[in-house]
Amino acid sequence: MKKWYLGEGEQSDVVVSTRIRLARNLEDYPFPSRLDTKSRVQINEMIHKAVPEAAGLRYIEMKTLTQPEIVSLAERHMISPEFASDTDGRALLLSEDEDVSIMLCEEDHIRLQVMTSGLALSESYDKANKLDDALNETLRFAFDERLGYLTQCPTNIGTGMRASVMLHLPALTATHSIGTLAVTVSKLGLTLRGAYGEGTAPMGDLYQLSNQVTLGISEEAAIENLKTIVLQLAAQERAARQELIKSIECQDDIYRAYGILKSARILSTKEFMHLISKVRMGAVSGLLDVDPKHMSELMVTLQPAGISAKVGKNLAPRERDIERARIVRETI
Amino acid sequence: MKKWYLGEGEQSDVVVSTRIRLARNLEDYPFPSRLDTKSRVQINEMIHKAVPEAAGLRYIEMKTLTQPEIVSLAERHMISPEFASDTDGRALLLSEDEDVSIMLCEEDHIRLQVMTSGLALSESYDKANKLDDALNETLRFAFDERLGYLTQCPTNIGTGMRASVMLHLPALTATHSIGTLAVTVSKLGLTLRGAYGEGTAPMGDLYQLSNQVTLGISEEAAIENLKTIVLQLAAQERAARQELIKSIECQDDIYRAYGILKSARILSTKEFMHLISKVRMGAVSGLLDVDPKHMSELMVTLQPAGISAKVGKNLAPRERDIERARIVRETI
Repeated sequence: MKKWYLGEGEQSDVVVSTRIRLARNLEDYPFPSRLDTKSRVQINEMIHKAVPEAAGLRYIEMKTLTQPEIVSLAERHMISPEFASDTDGRALLLSEDEDVSIMLCEEDHIRLQVMTSGLALSESYDKANKLDDALNETLRFAFDERLGYLTQCPTNIGTGMRASVMLHLPALTATHSIGTLAVTVSKLGLTLRGAYGEGTAPMGDLYQLSNQVTLGISEEAAIENLKTIVLQLAAQERAARQELIKSIECQDDIYRAYGILKSARILSTKEFMHLISKVRMGAVSGLLDVDPKHMSELMVTLQPAGISAKVGKNLAPRERDIERARIVRETI
Repeated sequence: MKKWYLGEGEQSDVVVSTRIRLARNLEDYPFPSRLDTKSRVQINEMIHKAVPEAAGLRYIEMKTLTQPEIVSLAERHMISPEFASDTDGRALLLSEDEDVSIMLCEEDHIRLQVMTSGLALSESYDKANKLDDALNETLRFAFDERLGYLTQCPTNIGTGMRASVMLHLPALTATHSIGTLAVTVSKLGLTLRGAYGEGTAPMGDLYQLSNQVTLGISEEAAIENLKTIVLQLAAQERAARQELIKSIECQDDIYRAYGILKSARILSTKEFMHLISKVRMGAVSGLLDVDPKHMSELMVTLQPAGISAKVGKNLAPRERDIERARIVRETI
């Protein structure tokens, strides 16, 4: 039952996690948006049958889940917000570690996703690729010799692959460097944006860096390109941290965040993410004697619906904030 | 070397300390403001000789002290701010515990003061009275059969006694009850005001309650009157605390204050007093496992000049705030 986000992995002082997502569609079937519920369910079951037993994926009809369970899956990035918004004729294949998930009848018939903690682009791609090959043994994918995999949205046509890493960039955020970096990486075919909530100041200083180009480039080349930029960003973040952490004001900030997390009785999502970001930076910098693993775990599991799902009932915001504070105190 | 403020005493959940101050002047000598330096020094030495050896008072010429040492004495309420402002021809008699001090040539020739932790009006008065009697054996005080002791300021004529208690009233402050209470006690011949800094929100929720009337009332009656009101205020404060502390918002507030004090690297006087007040309330309410004694000690000793005096040099505000945070972390 060791979830993927409990691992550490490479570059984990900056890189929280790696995600590879493959979009596939079955030949001879319209895209899901053109299918009625019955046809979707048929397709879902067909794909389910094609999954090898050894993959250990659990088949979950989305309509059987409670609202907090569904939203919690989206918070943990197991499913997309779009997938969470409508359960009709949709199903999910999920591994016990939650590192592998396949959304059935999202925008495409198949959205296969592999998550790993730390920086693990090649490993994640290999894992996704093997599962893709296994499915391909019984299923026939919509594929064009010239274009590659066909997807509903033209931005995915080609490899159908989206590779992304979640980066923790508190120092580059503090030095107001993100805007410039976002412009720079966009010129290199990548997108940098807030992982939780869009806008200038994403919660927890967490960002998603992903490839944009899927056409005319191999999966390996796209991954290599992304990896190069990730390593550069990580080096910049580390340099900025080293500079910042010299100041007693920054140390004060980190220790206070730690003190509050260890003692507060009420913690809103926003304040929690703000504080845990500082503590994570303090932990990986060796300033605080806290296991950084716990920080990533809390960031992933203590989102609003995650807490309700954990408790097993829909909590009011105030109860949720009290429960969040309790879990944080007991974990840190 | 156990300072008075390390004790606890009665009603110490609300009453931090008790102070009795007696104003006396020598017969046949003008008030200090009318004396030159030489005459002041003569008077000081005369009074010094009159102090019995057993009292254990150290004689300190104010001009021999550094500025931080002088201001620190005022912060600990050993001397008045007025006395601290000018060292010319002034001396201090001080016990090792700092519970007894005699300002020489302040406004009056003698300002004898006894401090005790907690509520101890009668005990403090007895102690002051005994020392007063001892001085009176060799010194002749300016005394009028009809008026009583003569002092420079008419507001002290009569008993020459000011009895005051320092109260910690965080709950009555939070419920905005202080204004009304100040008006009520003034009708009973008492004054309620901030112990650190005048104004509506005194630092640390610390207040000084003292008698105003010295003429036409015995010392015993004045003390009895003050004691009655103190007990009533303490009861009101306790009731307000019990009500407040039920709410998780108040508990959250107290625990956070504790968490910040235990971890901050920079603490300004204002923030420190704000937080320690909450922690003291949490400690006496049993919410926090902290010795309330330490709270009173820190409140008394961590004022700006006190820190410079402790370190032994004049610190810049930033260095002082760093040093304060260090001492707080090590004490709590």
